Amino acid sequence: DIVESLARFFAGADWLKGKKALVTAGGTQEPLDPVRYLGNRSSGRMGYAIAQALQEAGAETILVSAPTDLAVPAGVTCIQVQTALEMYDAVLTRFSEVDVVIKAAAVADYRPAVQAEQKIKKDGTSRTLELIPNPDILAELGRRKTSQVLVGFAAETENLLANAQDKMHRKNVNLLVANDVTKLGAGFGSLTNIVSFLFPDGRKIDFPQMSKHEVAQHLVREVANLLGV
Amino acid sequence: DIVESLARFFAGADWLKGKKALVTAGGTQEPLDPVRYLGNRSSGRMGYAIAQALQEAGAETILVSAPTDLAVPAGVTCIQVQTALEMYDAVLTRFSEVDVVIKAAAVADYRPAVQAEQKIKKDGTSRTLELIPNPDILAELGRRKTSQVLVGFAAETENLLANAQDKMHRKNVNLLVANDVTKLGAGFGSLTNIVSFLFPDGRKIDFPQMSKHEVAQHLVREVANLLGV
Repeated sequence: DIVESLARFFAGADWLKGKKALVTAGGTQEPLDPVRYLGNRSSGRMGYAIAQALQEAGAETILVSAPTDLAVPAGVTCIQVQTALEMYDAVLTRFSEVDVVIKAAAVADYRPAVQAEQKIKKDGTSRTLELIPNPDILAELGRRKTSQVLVGFAAETENLLANAQDKMHRKNVNLLVANDVTKLGAGFGSLTNIVSFLFPDGRKIDFPQMSKHEVAQHLVREVANLLGV
Repeated sequence: DIVESLARFFAGADWLKGKKALVTAGGTQEPLDPVRYLGNRSSGRMGYAIAQALQEAGAETILVSAPTDLAVPAGVTCIQVQTALEMYDAVLTRFSEVDVVIKAAAVADYRPAVQAEQKIKKDGTSRTLELIPNPDILAELGRRKTSQVLVGFAAETENLLANAQDKMHRKNVNLLVANDVTKLGAGFGSLTNIVSFLFPDGRKIDFPQMSKHEVAQHLVREVANLLGV
Protein backbone atom coordinates (compact mmCIF):
# COMPACT_ATOMS: atom_id res chain seq x y z
CA ASP A 1 0.00 0.00 0.00
CA ILE A 2 0.95 3.64 -0.09
CA VAL A 3 2.44 3.64 3.42
CA GLU A 4 4.73 0.73 2.65
CA SER A 5 5.81 2.05 -0.71
CA LEU A 6 6.56 5.39 0.88
CA ALA A 7 8.51 3.67 3.64
CA ARG A 8 10.54 1.80 1.03
CA PHE A 9 10.97 4.97 -0.95
CA PHE A 10 12.33 6.82 2.03
CA ALA A 11 14.32 4.01 3.62
CA GLY A 12 17.92 5.08 3.75
CA ALA A 13 17.24 8.26 1.77
CA ASP A 14 19.43 11.03 3.12
CA TRP A 15 18.78 13.53 0.37
CA LEU A 16 19.05 16.42 2.77
CA LYS A 17 22.40 15.44 4.27
CA GLY A 18 24.48 18.59 4.74
CA LYS A 19 21.39 20.81 4.57
CA LYS A 20 20.09 22.85 7.47
CA ALA A 21 16.33 23.16 7.98
CA LEU A 22 14.16 25.22 10.29
CA VAL A 23 10.53 24.33 11.03
CA THR A 24 8.02 26.29 13.11
CA ALA A 25 5.16 24.49 14.85
CA GLY A 26 2.29 24.95 17.28
CA GLY A 27 0.08 27.93 17.99
CA THR A 28 1.55 31.05 19.57
CA GLN A 29 0.00 32.32 22.79
CA GLU A 30 -0.41 36.07 23.33
CA PRO A 31 -0.78 36.86 27.05
CA LEU A 32 -3.41 39.26 28.39
CA ASP A 33 -2.14 38.72 31.94
CA PRO A 34 -0.20 35.98 33.79
CA VAL A 35 -2.97 33.39 33.28
CA ARG A 36 -4.99 34.40 30.20
CA TYR A 37 -3.97 34.42 26.55
CA LEU A 38 -5.19 34.64 22.99
CA GLY A 39 -4.53 31.26 21.40
CA ASN A 40 -5.47 29.15 18.43
CA ARG A 41 -6.32 25.53 17.70
CA SER A 42 -2.99 24.38 16.28
CA SER A 43 -1.89 21.11 17.92
CA GLY A 44 1.63 21.33 16.50
CA ARG A 45 1.36 17.82 15.03
CA MET A 46 1.93 18.86 11.40
CA GLY A 47 5.08 20.83 12.23
CA TYR A 48 6.49 18.12 14.51
CA ALA A 49 5.89 15.51 11.80
CA ILE A 50 7.75 17.73 9.30
CA ALA A 51 10.68 18.19 11.69
CA GLN A 52 10.89 14.42 12.09
CA ALA A 53 10.73 13.81 8.32
CA LEU A 54 13.44 16.44 7.66
CA GLN A 55 15.68 14.90 10.29
CA GLU A 56 15.10 11.40 8.90
CA ALA A 57 16.02 12.73 5.45
CA GLY A 58 19.39 13.77 6.86
CA ALA A 59 18.88 17.50 7.42
CA GLU A 60 20.22 19.24 10.51
CA THR A 61 16.84 20.31 11.85
CA ILE A 62 15.82 23.14 14.16
CA LEU A 63 12.25 23.19 15.46
CA VAL A 64 10.96 26.54 16.73
CA SER A 65 7.90 25.53 18.70
CA ALA A 66 5.06 27.37 20.38
CA PRO A 67 3.57 25.51 23.39
CA THR A 68 2.41 21.96 22.56
CA ASP A 69 2.14 18.66 24.43
CA LEU A 70 4.24 16.83 21.85
CA ALA A 71 7.60 15.13 22.28
CA VAL A 72 10.45 16.63 20.27
CA PRO A 73 11.51 14.10 17.58
CA ALA A 74 14.86 12.41 18.25
CA GLY A 75 17.80 14.29 16.81
CA VAL A 76 15.91 17.56 16.36
CA THR A 77 17.01 20.75 18.15
CA CYS A 78 13.98 22.45 19.70
CA ILE A 79 13.70 26.13 20.62
CA GLN A 80 10.61 26.79 22.74
CA VAL A 81 8.79 30.09 22.35
CA GLN A 82 5.41 31.39 23.47
CA THR A 83 4.49 34.53 21.53
CA ALA A 84 4.61 35.63 17.89
CA LEU A 85 7.33 38.17 18.75
CA GLU A 86 9.48 35.47 20.34
CA MET A 87 8.96 33.24 17.30
CA TYR A 88 9.84 36.14 15.00
CA ASP A 89 13.15 36.66 16.80
CA ALA A 90 13.96 32.92 16.96
CA VAL A 91 13.35 32.46 13.23
CA LEU A 92 14.80 35.69 11.86
CA THR A 93 18.10 35.38 13.74
CA ARG A 94 18.67 31.92 12.21
CA PHE A 95 17.37 32.57 8.70
CA SER A 96 20.73 33.35 7.09
CA GLU A 97 22.23 30.01 8.25
CA VAL A 98 19.53 27.67 6.93
CA ASP A 99 18.69 26.20 3.53
CA VAL A 100 15.00 25.71 4.06
CA VAL A 101 12.31 27.17 6.33
CA ILE A 102 8.92 25.52 6.72
CA LYS A 103 6.46 27.76 8.56
CA ALA A 104 3.89 25.29 9.91
CA ALA A 105 3.13 27.27 13.09
CA ALA A 106 -0.16 29.11 13.54
CA VAL A 107 1.09 32.56 14.50
CA ALA A 108 -1.28 35.03 16.12
CA ASP A 109 -1.90 37.99 13.80
CA TYR A 110 -2.67 40.18 16.79
CA ARG A 111 -1.56 40.54 20.39
CA PRO A 112 -3.11 42.50 23.26
CA ALA A 113 -1.77 46.07 23.24
CA VAL A 114 -1.28 45.88 27.00
CA GLN A 115 -0.17 42.85 29.03
CA ALA A 116 -1.26 43.11 32.67
CA GLU A 117 1.39 42.13 35.23
CA GLN A 118 -1.21 40.76 37.64
CA LYS A 119 -4.28 38.66 36.98
CA ILE A 120 -7.08 40.95 35.81
CA LYS A 121 -9.97 40.91 38.31
CA LYS A 122 -13.42 40.73 36.84
CA ASP A 123 -15.93 43.44 37.59
CA GLY A 124 -18.99 42.03 35.82
CA THR A 125 -19.09 44.68 33.12
CA SER A 126 -18.19 44.50 29.44
CA ARG A 127 -14.77 45.60 28.36
CA THR A 128 -12.78 46.05 25.19
CA LEU A 129 -9.44 44.50 24.49
CA GLU A 130 -7.10 46.57 22.31
CA LEU A 131 -5.24 44.39 19.83
CA ILE A 132 -2.21 45.40 17.79
CA PRO A 133 -0.80 43.56 14.75
CA ASN A 134 2.10 41.13 15.16
CA PRO A 135 4.91 41.17 12.60
CA ASP A 136 4.28 38.86 9.63
CA ILE A 137 7.12 36.33 9.91
CA LEU A 138 6.49 34.60 6.58
CA ALA A 139 6.29 37.89 4.65
CA GLU A 140 9.52 39.08 6.26
CA LEU A 141 11.28 35.83 5.32
CA GLY A 142 9.93 36.21 1.78
CA ARG A 143 11.42 39.70 1.59
CA ARG A 144 14.81 38.64 2.98
CA LYS A 145 15.29 35.30 1.28
CA THR A 146 18.26 34.74 -1.01
CA SER A 147 18.82 31.06 -1.85
CA GLN A 148 16.55 29.59 0.83
CA VAL A 149 13.55 27.44 0.02
CA LEU A 150 10.57 28.90 1.86
CA VAL A 151 7.43 26.87 2.55
CA GLY A 152 4.24 28.41 3.93
CA PHE A 153 0.90 27.05 5.09
CA ALA A 154 -2.58 28.45 4.50
CA ALA A 155 -5.26 27.18 6.85
CA GLU A 156 -8.50 28.57 5.53
CA THR A 157 -12.19 28.20 6.29
CA GLU A 158 -13.47 29.65 2.96
CA ASN A 159 -12.23 30.42 -0.58
CA LEU A 160 -9.29 28.10 0.07
CA LEU A 161 -7.63 28.08 -3.33
CA ALA A 162 -7.96 31.81 -4.02
CA ASN A 163 -6.72 32.77 -0.55
CA ALA A 164 -3.85 30.27 -0.75
CA GLN A 165 -2.67 31.39 -4.19
CA ASP A 166 -2.85 35.01 -3.12
CA LYS A 167 -0.80 34.20 -0.01
CA MET A 168 1.81 32.27 -2.03
CA HIS A 169 2.50 35.28 -4.26
CA ARG A 170 2.28 37.99 -1.59
CA LYS A 171 4.64 36.13 0.75
CA ASN A 172 7.12 35.09 -1.97
CA VAL A 173 7.17 31.41 -0.93
CA ASN A 174 8.43 28.48 -3.04
CA LEU A 175 5.69 26.11 -1.95
CA LEU A 176 2.41 26.73 -0.22
CA VAL A 177 0.55 23.98 1.62
CA ALA A 178 -3.18 24.73 1.55
CA ASN A 179 -5.67 23.02 3.80
CA ASP A 180 -9.33 23.61 4.46
CA VAL A 181 -9.58 23.31 8.23
CA THR A 182 -13.36 22.94 8.06
CA LYS A 183 -13.03 19.52 6.38
CA LEU A 184 -13.40 16.46 8.58
CA GLY A 185 -9.99 14.76 8.80
CA ALA A 186 -8.08 17.94 8.02
CA GLY A 187 -6.27 20.54 10.04
CA PHE A 188 -6.35 21.47 13.70
CA GLY A 189 -6.27 18.68 16.24
CA SER A 190 -6.62 15.98 13.60
CA LEU A 191 -4.12 13.16 13.12
CA THR A 192 -4.72 13.35 9.37
CA ASN A 193 -4.74 16.16 6.87
CA ILE A 194 -6.16 16.89 3.39
CA VAL A 195 -3.82 19.27 1.60
CA SER A 196 -2.82 20.71 -1.74
CA PHE A 197 0.69 21.84 -2.63
CA LEU A 198 0.79 25.05 -4.72
CA PHE A 199 3.88 26.26 -6.57
CA PRO A 200 4.61 29.70 -8.08
CA ASP A 201 4.95 28.09 -11.53
CA GLY A 202 1.26 27.23 -11.40
CA ARG A 203 1.61 23.55 -10.48
CA LYS A 204 -0.88 22.23 -7.96
CA ILE A 205 -0.83 18.78 -6.34
CA ASP A 206 -4.01 17.63 -4.61
CA PHE A 207 -3.56 14.82 -2.08
CA PRO A 208 -6.17 12.52 -0.60
CA GLN A 209 -6.62 12.32 3.18
CA MET A 210 -3.30 11.17 4.65
CA SER A 211 -1.62 10.98 8.04
CA LYS A 212 0.34 14.10 8.94
CA HIS A 213 3.48 11.95 8.75
CA GLU A 214 2.71 11.06 5.13
CA VAL A 215 2.06 14.72 4.29
CA ALA A 216 5.42 15.53 5.91
CA GLN A 217 7.20 12.94 3.77
CA HIS A 218 5.67 14.27 0.55
CA LEU A 219 6.62 17.77 1.63
CA VAL A 220 10.24 16.78 2.29
CA ARG A 221 10.42 15.16 -1.16
CA GLU A 222 9.21 18.39 -2.79
CA VAL A 223 11.64 20.45 -0.70
CA ALA A 224 14.49 18.21 -1.88
CA ASN A 225 13.36 18.83 -5.49
CA LEU A 226 13.26 22.58 -4.90
CA LEU A 227 16.76 22.45 -3.38
CA GLY A 228 17.91 20.59 -6.48
CA VAL A 229 19.16 17.55 -4.57
CA ASP B 1 6.97 8.73 54.31
CA ILE B 2 3.91 10.84 53.74
CA VAL B 3 3.05 9.21 50.40
CA GLU B 4 3.08 5.72 51.91
CA SER B 5 1.13 6.73 54.96
CA LEU B 6 -1.45 8.40 52.78
CA ALA B 7 -1.63 5.34 50.56
CA ARG B 8 -2.20 3.16 53.64
CA PHE B 9 -4.69 5.66 54.94
CA PHE B 10 -6.67 5.55 51.72
CA ALA B 11 -6.28 1.87 50.89
CA GLY B 12 -9.71 0.36 50.82
CA ALA B 13 -11.37 3.56 52.02
CA ASP B 14 -14.70 3.95 50.29
CA TRP B 15 -15.97 6.79 52.44
CA LEU B 16 -17.85 8.28 49.56
CA LYS B 17 -19.68 5.13 48.51
CA GLY B 18 -23.26 6.07 47.57
CA LYS B 19 -22.29 9.72 47.06
CA LYS B 20 -22.36 11.49 43.73
CA ALA B 21 -19.64 14.01 42.91
CA LEU B 22 -19.11 16.47 40.08
CA VAL B 23 -15.70 17.97 39.29
CA THR B 24 -14.86 20.61 36.69
CA ALA B 25 -11.40 20.73 35.13
CA GLY B 26 -9.32 22.42 32.45
CA GLY B 27 -9.46 25.92 31.02
CA THR B 28 -12.45 26.99 28.95
CA GLN B 29 -11.84 28.30 25.44
CA GLU B 30 -13.88 31.23 24.14
CA PRO B 31 -13.82 31.32 20.30
CA LEU B 32 -13.23 34.52 18.33
CA ASP B 33 -13.61 32.60 15.06
CA PRO B 34 -13.21 28.96 13.94
CA VAL B 35 -9.48 28.91 14.75
CA ARG B 36 -8.80 31.55 17.41
CA TYR B 37 -9.85 31.64 21.04
CA LEU B 38 -9.32 33.28 24.40
CA GLY B 39 -7.80 30.66 26.66
CA ASN B 40 -5.95 30.25 29.93
CA ARG B 41 -3.06 28.26 31.28
CA SER B 42 -4.96 25.56 33.16
CA SER B 43 -3.61 22.10 32.29
CA GLY B 44 -6.57 20.30 33.87
CA ARG B 45 -4.23 18.17 36.01
CA MET B 46 -5.61 19.29 39.38
CA GLY B 47 -9.22 18.58 38.39
CA TYR B 48 -8.41 15.22 36.83
CA ALA B 49 -6.48 14.19 39.96
CA ILE B 50 -9.50 15.16 42.08
CA ALA B 51 -11.88 13.16 39.87
CA GLN B 52 -9.62 10.13 40.26
CA ALA B 53 -9.38 10.53 44.05
CA LEU B 54 -13.18 10.90 44.36
CA GLN B 55 -13.72 7.80 42.26
CA GLU B 56 -11.16 5.84 44.29
CA ALA B 57 -12.97 6.92 47.46
CA GLY B 58 -16.13 5.29 46.10
CA ALA B 59 -18.06 8.28 44.77
CA GLU B 60 -19.96 8.11 41.49
CA THR B 61 -17.94 10.79 39.74
CA ILE B 62 -18.79 13.09 36.83
CA LEU B 63 -15.97 15.14 35.31
CA VAL B 64 -17.02 18.20 33.29
CA SER B 65 -13.88 19.00 31.35
CA ALA B 66 -12.75 21.85 29.15
CA PRO B 67 -10.20 20.81 26.47
CA THR B 68 -7.11 19.07 27.90
CA ASP B 69 -4.68 16.41 26.70
CA LEU B 70 -5.30 14.23 29.74
CA ALA B 71 -6.77 10.73 29.90
CA VAL B 72 -10.06 10.44 31.77
CA PRO B 73 -9.47 8.41 34.99
CA ALA B 74 -10.92 4.89 34.90
CA GLY B 75 -14.49 4.70 36.14
CA VAL B 76 -15.14 8.44 35.81
CA THR B 77 -17.90 9.76 33.50
CA CYS B 78 -16.53 12.64 31.44
CA ILE B 79 -18.58 15.40 29.77
CA GLN B 80 -16.46 17.42 27.36
CA VAL B 81 -17.20 21.12 26.95
CA GLN B 82 -15.35 24.02 25.35
CA THR B 83 -16.78 27.32 26.55
CA ALA B 84 -17.84 28.79 29.88
CA LEU B 85 -21.48 28.79 28.74
CA GLU B 86 -21.28 25.07 27.88
CA MET B 87 -19.69 24.36 31.26
CA TYR B 88 -22.38 26.44 32.99
CA ASP B 89 -25.13 24.33 31.35
CA ALA B 90 -23.37 21.01 32.01
CA VAL B 91 -22.88 21.80 35.71
CA LEU B 92 -26.16 23.55 36.50
CA THR B 93 -28.36 20.85 34.95
CA ARG B 94 -26.70 18.23 37.19
CA PHE B 95 -26.39 20.21 40.39
CA SER B 96 -29.57 18.99 42.05
CA GLU B 97 -28.52 15.31 41.71
CA VAL B 98 -25.06 15.56 43.27
CA ASP B 99 -23.73 15.66 46.83
CA VAL B 100 -20.53 17.54 46.13
CA VAL B 101 -19.23 19.88 43.43
CA ILE B 102 -15.54 20.73 43.13
CA LYS B 103 -14.93 23.61 40.71
CA ALA B 104 -11.30 23.13 39.70
CA ALA B 105 -11.73 24.46 36.14
CA ALA B 106 -10.36 27.82 35.11
CA VAL B 107 -13.43 29.41 33.57
CA ALA B 108 -13.07 32.45 31.33
CA ASP B 109 -14.62 35.52 32.97
CA TYR B 110 -15.22 37.05 29.53
CA ARG B 111 -16.04 35.89 26.02
CA PRO B 112 -15.90 37.77 22.71
CA ALA B 113 -19.20 39.59 22.12
CA VAL B 114 -19.17 38.38 18.52
CA GLN B 115 -17.94 35.02 17.23
CA ALA B 116 -17.02 35.17 13.52
CA GLU B 117 -18.24 32.24 11.43
CA GLN B 118 -15.20 32.41 9.15
CA LYS B 119 -11.55 32.92 10.01
CA ILE B 120 -10.95 36.65 10.49
CA LYS B 121 -8.51 37.96 7.86
CA LYS B 122 -5.84 40.32 9.08
CA ASP B 123 -5.61 43.78 7.61
CA GLY B 124 -2.49 45.04 9.38
CA THR B 125 -4.28 47.62 11.49
CA SER B 126 -5.12 47.64 15.18
CA ARG B 127 -8.53 46.51 16.27
CA THR B 128 -10.57 46.18 19.40
CA LEU B 129 -12.21 43.05 20.66
CA GLU B 130 -15.48 43.53 22.55
CA LEU B 131 -15.69 41.22 25.56
CA ILE B 132 -18.82 40.46 27.57
CA PRO B 133 -18.96 38.77 31.00
CA ASN B 134 -19.60 35.06 31.28
CA PRO B 135 -21.97 33.80 33.98
CA ASP B 136 -20.24 33.05 37.28
CA ILE B 137 -20.79 29.31 37.72
CA LEU B 138 -19.46 29.08 41.27
CA ALA B 139 -21.52 32.04 42.49
CA GLU B 140 -24.65 30.56 40.90
CA LEU B 141 -24.01 27.20 42.60
CA GLY B 142 -23.48 29.03 45.89
CA ARG B 143 -26.87 30.74 45.49
CA ARG B 144 -28.68 27.51 44.58
CA LYS B 145 -27.05 25.07 46.96
CA THR B 146 -29.13 23.20 49.51
CA SER B 147 -27.30 20.27 51.11
CA GLN B 148 -24.43 20.09 48.63
CA VAL B 149 -20.81 20.54 49.64
CA LEU B 150 -19.32 23.18 47.34
CA VAL B 151 -15.56 23.52 46.84
CA GLY B 152 -13.99 26.41 44.94
CA PHE B 153 -10.47 27.30 43.85
CA ALA B 154 -8.74 30.67 43.91
CA ALA B 155 -5.69 30.96 41.67
CA GLU B 156 -4.19 34.32 42.44
CA THR B 157 -1.07 36.24 41.52
CA GLU B 158 -1.25 38.80 44.34
CA ASN B 159 -2.95 39.29 47.74
CA LEU B 160 -3.67 35.56 47.79
CA LEU B 161 -5.18 35.18 51.24
CA ALA B 162 -7.37 38.30 51.14
CA ASN B 163 -8.67 37.53 47.65
CA ALA B 164 -9.30 33.87 48.54
CA GLN B 165 -11.15 34.66 51.77
CA ASP B 166 -13.25 37.24 50.01
CA LYS B 167 -14.09 34.73 47.27
CA MET B 168 -15.01 32.03 49.83
CA HIS B 169 -17.60 34.27 51.46
CA ARG B 170 -18.98 35.90 48.30
CA LYS B 171 -19.44 32.53 46.56
CA ASN B 172 -20.88 30.73 49.60
CA VAL B 173 -18.51 27.77 49.33
CA ASN B 174 -17.77 25.18 52.04
CA LEU B 175 -14.09 24.94 51.28
CA LEU B 176 -11.83 27.16 49.21
CA VAL B 177 -8.51 25.92 47.84
CA ALA B 178 -6.13 28.86 47.47
CA ASN B 179 -2.96 28.73 45.44
CA ASP B 180 -0.48 31.37 44.42
CA VAL B 181 0.17 30.54 40.77
CA THR B 182 3.29 32.71 40.71
CA LYS B 183 5.10 30.29 43.08
CA LEU B 184 7.51 27.81 41.53
CA GLY B 185 5.99 24.33 41.89
CA ALA B 186 2.42 25.64 42.16
CA GLY B 187 -0.45 26.02 39.78
CA PHE B 188 -0.73 26.04 36.00
CA GLY B 189 1.18 23.39 34.10
CA SER B 190 2.97 22.14 37.22
CA LEU B 191 2.79 18.53 38.43
CA THR B 192 2.85 19.81 42.01
CA ASN B 193 0.91 22.41 43.89
CA ILE B 194 1.27 24.53 47.02
CA VAL B 195 -2.16 25.20 48.48
CA SER B 196 -4.08 26.28 51.52
CA PHE B 197 -7.57 25.09 52.42
CA LEU B 198 -9.84 27.82 53.82
CA PHE B 199 -13.12 27.14 55.62
CA PRO B 200 -15.98 29.53 56.45
CA ASP B 201 -15.49 28.79 60.18
CA GLY B 202 -12.07 30.48 59.97
CA ARG B 203 -9.96 27.32 59.81
CA LYS B 204 -7.00 27.43 57.43
CA ILE B 205 -4.73 24.51 56.55
CA ASP B 206 -1.42 25.33 54.85
CA PHE B 207 0.20 22.46 52.99
CA PRO B 208 3.78 22.09 51.81
CA GLN B 209 4.52 21.47 48.12
CA MET B 210 2.81 18.20 47.16
CA SER B 211 1.89 16.33 44.00
CA LYS B 212 -1.54 17.23 42.62
CA HIS B 213 -2.60 13.67 43.46
CA GLU B 214 -1.70 14.22 47.13
CA VAL B 215 -3.58 17.52 47.16
CA ALA B 216 -6.56 15.67 45.68
CA GLN B 217 -6.45 13.03 48.42
CA HIS B 218 -6.35 15.64 51.20
CA LEU B 219 -9.24 17.42 49.50
CA VAL B 220 -11.33 14.26 49.32
CA ARG B 221 -10.70 13.63 53.03
CA GLU B 222 -11.94 17.13 53.89
CA VAL B 223 -14.96 16.70 51.61
CA ALA B 224 -15.82 13.47 53.41
CA ASN B 225 -15.61 15.35 56.73
CA LEU B 226 -17.88 18.09 55.40
CA LEU B 227 -20.36 15.47 54.19
CA GLY B 228 -20.28 13.96 57.69
CA VAL B 229 -19.17 10.52 56.50
